[in-house]
Amino acid sequence: MHYKFAALFFIMENIRTSIVTIGDELLIGQVIDTNSAWMAQELNKIGVWVHRRVAVGDVWDEIWQALDEESAMSDVILITGGLGPTSDDITKPLLCKYFAGAMVMHEETLAHVSYLFEHVFKRPMPLLDVNRKQAEVPDVATVLKNYVGTAPGMLFEKNGKIFISMPGVPHEMKGIMEKHVLPLLKQRFALPYIGHRTLLTVGIGESFLAERIKYFENSLPQDIKLAYLPNYGMVRLRLTAQGEKEATEKKLDETFAILKNEVKDVLAVDEDISFEILLGKLLKQKNKTVATAESCTGGYIAHLITSIAGSSDYFKGSVVSYANSIKENVLHVSNETLASVGAVSEETVKEMVKGVLNVIQTDYAVAVSGIMGPDGGSEEKPVGTVWMAAGNAQKTETKKMHFRFSRKRNIELTAINALYLLCMFIKNDS
Amino acid sequence: MHYKFAALFFIMENIRTSIVTIGDELLIGQVIDTNSAWMAQELNKIGVWVHRRVAVGDVWDEIWQALDEESAMSDVILITGGLGPTSDDITKPLLCKYFAGAMVMHEETLAHVSYLFEHVFKRPMPLLDVNRKQAEVPDVATVLKNYVGTAPGMLFEKNGKIFISMPGVPHEMKGIMEKHVLPLLKQRFALPYIGHRTLLTVGIGESFLAERIKYFENSLPQDIKLAYLPNYGMVRLRLTAQGEKEATEKKLDETFAILKNEVKDVLAVDEDISFEILLGKLLKQKNKTVATAESCTGGYIAHLITSIAGSSDYFKGSVVSYANSIKENVLHVSNETLASVGAVSEETVKEMVKGVLNVIQTDYAVAVSGIMGPDGGSEEKPVGTVWMAAGNAQKTETKKMHFRFSRKRNIELTAINALYLLCMFIKNDS
Repeated sequence: MHYKFAALFFIMENIRTSIVTIGDELLIGQVIDTNSAWMAQELNKIGVWVHRRVAVGDVWDEIWQALDEESAMSDVILITGGLGPTSDDITKPLLCKYFAGAMVMHEETLAHVSYLFEHVFKRPMPLLDVNRKQAEVPDVATVLKNYVGTAPGMLFEKNGKIFISMPGVPHEMKGIMEKHVLPLLKQRFALPYIGHRTLLTVGIGESFLAERIKYFENSLPQDIKLAYLPNYGMVRLRLTAQGEKEATEKKLDETFAILKNEVKDVLAVDEDISFEILLGKLLKQKNKTVATAESCTGGYIAHLITSIAGSSDYFKGSVVSYANSIKENVLHVSNETLASVGAVSEETVKEMVKGVLNVIQTDYAVAVSGIMGPDGGSEEKPVGTVWMAAGNAQKTETKKMHFRFSRKRNIELTAINALYLLCMFIKNDS
Repeated sequence: MHYKFAALFFIMENIRTSIVTIGDELLIGQVIDTNSAWMAQELNKIGVWVHRRVAVGDVWDEIWQALDEESAMSDVILITGGLGPTSDDITKPLLCKYFAGAMVMHEETLAHVSYLFEHVFKRPMPLLDVNRKQAEVPDVATVLKNYVGTAPGMLFEKNGKIFISMPGVPHEMKGIMEKHVLPLLKQRFALPYIGHRTLLTVGIGESFLAERIKYFENSLPQDIKLAYLPNYGMVRLRLTAQGEKEATEKKLDETFAILKNEVKDVLAVDEDISFEILLGKLLKQKNKTVATAESCTGGYIAHLITSIAGSSDYFKGSVVSYANSIKENVLHVSNETLASVGAVSEETVKEMVKGVLNVIQTDYAVAVSGIMGPDGGSEEKPVGTVWMAAGNAQKTETKKMHFRFSRKRNIELTAINALYLLCMFIKNDS
């Protein structure tokens, strides 16, 4: 499966990669696997495709079988999890046996574990046997130092295949990937360049979009792939190509320009960025500030905005007015409005924008009020009804929406759509 | 691998299950797979263990091979994804060929698709060919109606193995699982009862905890499994057993009582619930209300609290005081405090609690202020430094913490620890 092809000026290798995750917690659903997505993204950036991901429990035979199968299909097998200090973690002894090694104390790792316990974790107690065991490794492994944790990464080779074992704790895995695995793969293989172009459309369903760009899709060159990624009621379109960097980029740019033109009336963003990142870019360009007034989203919009590093440059604060008394007393929504048309109304979100602009003193603001469920709906205003408004001191734009999903998803959809309304308001504000 | 064992009064089957997820977006990391965790949890509740999870791309041979492999190992193969209307979705034609069927129009599904477009999606345009195609199914499939989407679920049987294909859109998959798959598995198999007991410890590392309960662990009956689930600097302990319901529950209760006693000084919660759920329980018991004053978490604590249905009974609102001017003008933190000891200080979070109790008028409040990174740290207050306070009108409890991770994780850790501080304050408040 490991094939090479030579072009005029470069040699390129397509290596097959599998990710094997180990741990009962993944199979009973106690933990959501976010590691694999991060690993795939980082691998992709250096030209490595993940072909398969397999999750197995802390079960000797299942892990063994997964290693057999994946190494029959892939060149690189990345393994996460099962390296903890407790007895349900069997990955290290298994790897030792799988690669016919013997367990030995790795003195450098032991010194590192001791250092961590003394200076970082600040545990007053002496090292336990289980802690010392963290520093043992099979003598057939190359140790990959885990700077932020006690379980080292380990590299094995067998029949020309590379196996790398890492802890499942996300920031420990990330450290080992960044410090060791990604540089190692770049050095070992002549990797192809993989390029993507992504845009986001709003207001058109996947099938209508597909119908619209059918001709474009059918006339795509064979080496450019188009994917539809629907989410939050919006559809992302992604073009992907691989090859020599400069030629790939050029081809993608040309094709992307055509695609953008095909969808120009429903195009929201021509980058693969979230609305909270777009918001930051727009506000920094204009040197303006923003605040949020949130009822039904309960602070989630503010959270999205502040999840971006550097957001304190343009985000000043938020009033989460869950109770109507806060809408009245802090945001100064009028009692008449609340009594006559209710909290979930166009008038209320308009007054919330005005109120929060005054209280927090920003250039722009966004406000939402709605019914997220599962209870609280009425015939007139069923669960999922949301009013949102974006505005500045001069004017306000409002929108009514209706979502039909779970509470969690209704909150997410409300936040994303409110950020979209806000971004478009700021973009069009001259 | 499909084995049965008979006990005196019941017959129990341990069925092996695999989850196969299909889609390039999962392999390039554009989407995090939350479906599998949900499916595993729901299956677990009815006594079905997931043994393997495999993710493959939208590639004919890879999907085919995954079906071959998983059906060689498992009795039930649950497949999600690849059923969309666009040309990168190849799962349905592949399944048609795999099970040697012929594609036919399923009239009931066609009527449902038409209904959805007209009345739910409210698309004015007539059905496109691709929409009609959504209603085609292999004639060898049993159709499982998808009430909230256009792609139907499909059930196939081959060599005694059950294959079920569902769309990858989370709420569509969930609908088909709840309406069809779970009832069907319960009806088809005599499933064992699976019971769990989970508790959460705070303030002790995984290895020290393991050392502490070594004797307990070694003397566990063979049919009870203990797992350590470290997360957010806390460690969950989970006991699992399966068998006949009543006996299993009794055995788990007895063992859990012993475990709770072993860890009583570090025990935070003896249920598998989050702090935001615990907070709701405590406040409802006491018939009290709460507010948050958030600087560095930017509304994330309020979001966690309001992610719980019914939280409007006890959560009134929040002031997200990202800029110091909001701390002063809205929360009335004194200018002297901010000028002398700064925003990240014990005094500031104490004044934030007092301020938000006044502004939002609640019984309890929690406040946080810190530096989440990647920038903004200093020698004296490095990135990751956080002060938090929980209190009521009479008294306030404070805590200083230091986190060493990414911005995202620092925010999460701050929020979780602040909720813990708040819960313990309320619990101990008489």
